[in-house]
Amino acid sequence: MPAENETSLTSSPQEMRLIQLYHAHIYYDPATRAKAELLRERVGERFPQATLGRWHDALVGPHTQSMYQIAFPVEMFAEFAPWLMLNRDGLTILLHPETGRAKADHTAHAVWMGAVLPVELEALKD
Amino acid sequence: MPAENETSLTSSPQEMRLIQLYHAHIYYDPATRAKAELLRERVGERFPQATLGRWHDALVGPHTQSMYQIAFPVEMFAEFAPWLMLNRDGLTILLHPETGRAKADHTAHAVWMGAVLPVELEALKD
Repeated sequence: MPAENETSLTSSPQEMRLIQLYHAHIYYDPATRAKAELLRERVGERFPQATLGRWHDALVGPHTQSMYQIAFPVEMFAEFAPWLMLNRDGLTILLHPETGRAKADHTAHAVWMGAVLPVELEALKD
Repeated sequence: MPAENETSLTSSPQEMRLIQLYHAHIYYDPATRAKAELLRERVGERFPQATLGRWHDALVGPHTQSMYQIAFPVEMFAEFAPWLMLNRDGLTILLHPETGRAKADHTAHAVWMGAVLPVELEALKD
């Protein structure tokens, strides 16, 4: 993945103000859908600032497994990211910032819980 | 990994107060050591609250690649985790909470940047 190395060793650190919001993608399959439903319900109750996206049983965008998206503001990161770490219940999750550089956000800037899934980079702009 | 599924579907959500501090493990090899050195230097300058651990060229604990550890308090998470996301420069990083349950902290509770590396669970307590 070329995006992994696009920041050269001598470039300046990137500042957090580049981050406009975050997305968490909750992956599931028929065997884990019930867990994904429970997680969604808990997030909806606990984090009213989060925007819960549609269920995408069919693959969409760069994703190679069924998923739904949770969009959340920067201010929610400090509470929500650790909450996901403690409560993902075995689900695979991609959490990434939105900086306007979609390829980097889904690769170089991404964090994964459970596994690193393939991402279709052709679907993303530089 | 049994720890992945140890939280049953019907258990209550785990609360953030379980988290006492965090560790980030910065993995490197001979080809990426210079990047790991630069990252360490930048973290030392920018995050005085972080505790930079020794370089472990030889494998230590549950880790299956050379690494050094950055221990940091809960209050630093909101700024430091996104900073690592933007500035890891292609390095593989394990970020995990310390809740007193070492196996879960390195598996179920862990987030990874770059790749998910194997972890020697035999070295960790339940």
